Amino acid sequence: MRATVMYGAGDVRVENVPDPIVKESTDAIVRVTRACICGSDLWPYQSMPHKDGGRRMGHEFIGVVEDVGVDVSGLARGDLVVAPFVWADNTCDFCAEGLQTSCRHGGGWGAPGVDAGQGEAVRVPQAQGTLVKLPVAEDSALMPSLLTLSDVFCTGHHGVVTAGVGPGSSVTVIGDGAVGLCAVLAAKRLGAEQIILNGRHTVRTDLGREFGATDVVPERGDEAVEKIRELTGGDGTHAVIECVGTEPSVATALDAVRAGGRVSRLGVSQYTQVPMDFGTFFRNVTLTGGVAPARAYIEELMPDVLDGTIEPGRVFDRTIGLDETPDGYRAMADREALKVLIEP
Amino acid sequence: MRATVMYGAGDVRVENVPDPIVKESTDAIVRVTRACICGSDLWPYQSMPHKDGGRRMGHEFIGVVEDVGVDVSGLARGDLVVAPFVWADNTCDFCAEGLQTSCRHGGGWGAPGVDAGQGEAVRVPQAQGTLVKLPVAEDSALMPSLLTLSDVFCTGHHGVVTAGVGPGSSVTVIGDGAVGLCAVLAAKRLGAEQIILNGRHTVRTDLGREFGATDVVPERGDEAVEKIRELTGGDGTHAVIECVGTEPSVATALDAVRAGGRVSRLGVSQYTQVPMDFGTFFRNVTLTGGVAPARAYIEELMPDVLDGTIEPGRVFDRTIGLDETPDGYRAMADREALKVLIEP
Repeated sequence: MRATVMYGAGDVRVENVPDPIVKESTDAIVRVTRACICGSDLWPYQSMPHKDGGRRMGHEFIGVVEDVGVDVSGLARGDLVVAPFVWADNTCDFCAEGLQTSCRHGGGWGAPGVDAGQGEAVRVPQAQGTLVKLPVAEDSALMPSLLTLSDVFCTGHHGVVTAGVGPGSSVTVIGDGAVGLCAVLAAKRLGAEQIILNGRHTVRTDLGREFGATDVVPERGDEAVEKIRELTGGDGTHAVIECVGTEPSVATALDAVRAGGRVSRLGVSQYTQVPMDFGTFFRNVTLTGGVAPARAYIEELMPDVLDGTIEPGRVFDRTIGLDETPDGYRAMADREALKVLIEP
Repeated sequence: MRATVMYGAGDVRVENVPDPIVKESTDAIVRVTRACICGSDLWPYQSMPHKDGGRRMGHEFIGVVEDVGVDVSGLARGDLVVAPFVWADNTCDFCAEGLQTSCRHGGGWGAPGVDAGQGEAVRVPQAQGTLVKLPVAEDSALMPSLLTLSDVFCTGHHGVVTAGVGPGSSVTVIGDGAVGLCAVLAAKRLGAEQIILNGRHTVRTDLGREFGATDVVPERGDEAVEKIRELTGGDGTHAVIECVGTEPSVATALDAVRAGGRVSRLGVSQYTQVPMDFGTFFRNVTLTGGVAPARAYIEELMPDVLDGTIEPGRVFDRTIGLDETPDGYRAMADREALKVLIEP
């Protein structure tokens, strides 16, 4: 079959790889019908050292079950399923707590010996715990929004949940990428009253407004903090969702949050330290978030996608075939595309 | 009257200062019957640059109301009261949320024009919101434990509350000072099952065991993390309460916490940054805590002190008169004394 392999920064190839087969009794084989490129894929695209043999890419996909191991219950050939962006048994103590990203028997797509999503098919370890069936046809118009349940919308939701967003909350979202826009939508869904989107790309912030942003702040750093404080009577917002992943962005988040408030980190951390000084100590600022356990949220969020209440799939602004994936990376890195959907 | 003034590192004096009088209609005058020295007072004692005129010291006291302004309700001459370690109106939005440390009309003891606790009397701004009546006699044997409600026990409680400690939790407490020991007691009170005290002063860790510590780890840094992980099946504890205030101590806390767990900062931050790298991001570690809004907790905790369920006052191991206060600072800085109680 064909699959996407990254060999180093800027070097993404679609190559022939072995067809997946059931290796463990808990495996399933899924033929991928939709996949996509994640903002987090751009970090290695920009900086990964050359790797012999490369690294399989993609951690977001929908597909059709083609085969299952003998210990897999509840899934059968022909089922349409969505995969969260890590695989997990969904039964261990961490999974029971909703932290499938720390599953005792789980792991990541594209790890050695494990397939990844940007390809024609995937061997899914711990299939019974990992995959969630979709009650629609393979060609449903809901595919883009359902695909966001594999990562990007669940990630936005994770940010607002860990930041304690609820009815009446004020929220700042830092970053107008797909995660930031999904965080806006997730905050709106949970009843946030004021949603300030910090971003400067008008096409994206316009979609952010449609998703629920009440204000857009294009400034960065201290100027952004000043604007956010102006918009909140000097206080800052109850919650700040950090969707960039750099230290300056975290610093802005910590300065923009209200005393007693929470900053949730969603941008994959490209830093090793954050500025948490006496000011954040005295103001009782909480820093939370992290990699989203998408699996924990899929069942809860899916009904709102199925009935059209939310349309997170609007973050996809380009659809390509699998062989065009290298250009999809380029387009996202060059900010030509917000988020690229792949139809293998 | 006499009061404690710090002029710089190591330079603490007890001096004549003006007698306090009601200046604002919301003030009360309180004659101090018990005060104490806080671990946080040791930071300026070790590093404060010389200050002409000095700085009034002390933010923990119990006393008798001697006078009240015309706008003070619910308090009368002769009432015995405890003061939390900041004053606050207890009615603004922050106070209503239990964050009296960010009160819109509050402030700190010893600020310019404001008295402080280590003296014979105090003008208490926002007295009605700040002071809490004590239903005991001035010479009650419960005085030491009731005095801990002004700061140190409420601070320990704030740590375990913000860290989400509850029945069955595993908790690490880093630091065996008075705050650390109070955090142990507060964790035990809230039902924690495993309480690991990280400290090396046997007299203190012995009291920690009496307060509820199930394990004592004397090592520091990576060795401490290794021991804590050994004691928790490799996972670390659900909560870590950081009661030192240095960057290495925060680093230990972040490494010792279980995935999905919370580190609460109680040690007054002597650092400007903390190590929050991809590991903490991937493990969904939350960093919370901060300066404790003691006022929010006094009514909740007082009954357990009054009926003897808890005895946080055991952290006091020396009692002195007001004129001996400079030596009290020295004794705490030299670790001769754990926490010093002052009887003015």
